[in-house]
Amino acid sequence: MGKVVADISVSMDGFITGPNPDVEQSLGEGIDRLHEWMYDLAAFRQPHGLEGGNTNRDSEVFEEAFEAPGAMIMGRSMFDVGEGPWGDNPPFHKPVFVLTHGPRETLVKEGGTSFTFITDGVGSALDQARAAAGAKDVGIAGGANVIQQFIKAGLLDEIQIHLAPVLLGGGIRLFEHIAEQVHLERTRLIESPAVTHLKFRIVK
Amino acid sequence: MGKVVADISVSMDGFITGPNPDVEQSLGEGIDRLHEWMYDLAAFRQPHGLEGGNTNRDSEVFEEAFEAPGAMIMGRSMFDVGEGPWGDNPPFHKPVFVLTHGPRETLVKEGGTSFTFITDGVGSALDQARAAAGAKDVGIAGGANVIQQFIKAGLLDEIQIHLAPVLLGGGIRLFEHIAEQVHLERTRLIESPAVTHLKFRIVK
Repeated sequence: MGKVVADISVSMDGFITGPNPDVEQSLGEGIDRLHEWMYDLAAFRQPHGLEGGNTNRDSEVFEEAFEAPGAMIMGRSMFDVGEGPWGDNPPFHKPVFVLTHGPRETLVKEGGTSFTFITDGVGSALDQARAAAGAKDVGIAGGANVIQQFIKAGLLDEIQIHLAPVLLGGGIRLFEHIAEQVHLERTRLIESPAVTHLKFRIVK
Repeated sequence: MGKVVADISVSMDGFITGPNPDVEQSLGEGIDRLHEWMYDLAAFRQPHGLEGGNTNRDSEVFEEAFEAPGAMIMGRSMFDVGEGPWGDNPPFHKPVFVLTHGPRETLVKEGGTSFTFITDGVGSALDQARAAAGAKDVGIAGGANVIQQFIKAGLLDEIQIHLAPVLLGGGIRLFEHIAEQVHLERTRLIESPAVTHLKFRIVK
């Protein structure tokens, strides 16, 4: 059985989205500054159907994080924001389980991505994602609220943070509403000019 | 003229103090988990009048950060919390300028530490600290609010963050109330088993 992992870009002030989201910039102002380190990577471009791009330490980290999970779990808000932009061939290429309150029929997309809607909580989503992932990891895609639920339930084994050297000044914080004093163990650190990749085991 | 620098331990959820401060634990619950990486260092123990301790990469980083400033600036709250515990021979051993609203006579302590109370704002504090520091840096000791004032005024050149692998779940955040989108440039990264030392230049 694989691990339960999360992998996410975070600003120096702890945000995973920017302030003042609107229709044009649904993830808030400055979100491109947070994700900038990824855009030119071959490993990012390829699953998004784009050619070319750079191969470097960042792309190795990205590719590894992309390949490790055999299934993903995400929250309904993330799905709602992404559904349009992701189009017919979303970049996951694996089964995705969406935590939601309203039942909905499974969506099967091109390229191996499916969206299955789970209405009975994180434990059930995890059971189904584990079954789909087989020996591979289960990836918790986000948003922050879903990652927090997994941390609070003691279900997250590992988190990799891509610490971007920006202050966004507002948005959604990765770590919030976690009253428990959690201890992490840094298991890997990779630096590149663009970003700092920090991997932690969550000590239970 | 030296740089204006800040150097501070920060939790993974961005806090520099813990939740629920009281008289016993004026910096909040869990603060020892945040500062644990320092306590056994010779470089920490010596200025606090304690013997022995470890010499390692952490102590080199600590010592460098301690030696670089020729004068410090701190907020009134930090001074109020520290004044008792610091005793007759506070650990700074250099002139300290305290931002406050109420005038007070300069306190001259043992070991080279003095506390001068500044009532006319960060610009004035910086002028006086620069004069005292000579060619050395001016260190912004904290708290968060003072560091934020220096960032917002465009007066902070550099910040070193000792990123501790803990979630505190509450307290005072280092980066808050900064609406500006600030860009940082990571200029150094040092890892130790206990903590990750990240140094950034603040891009203006």
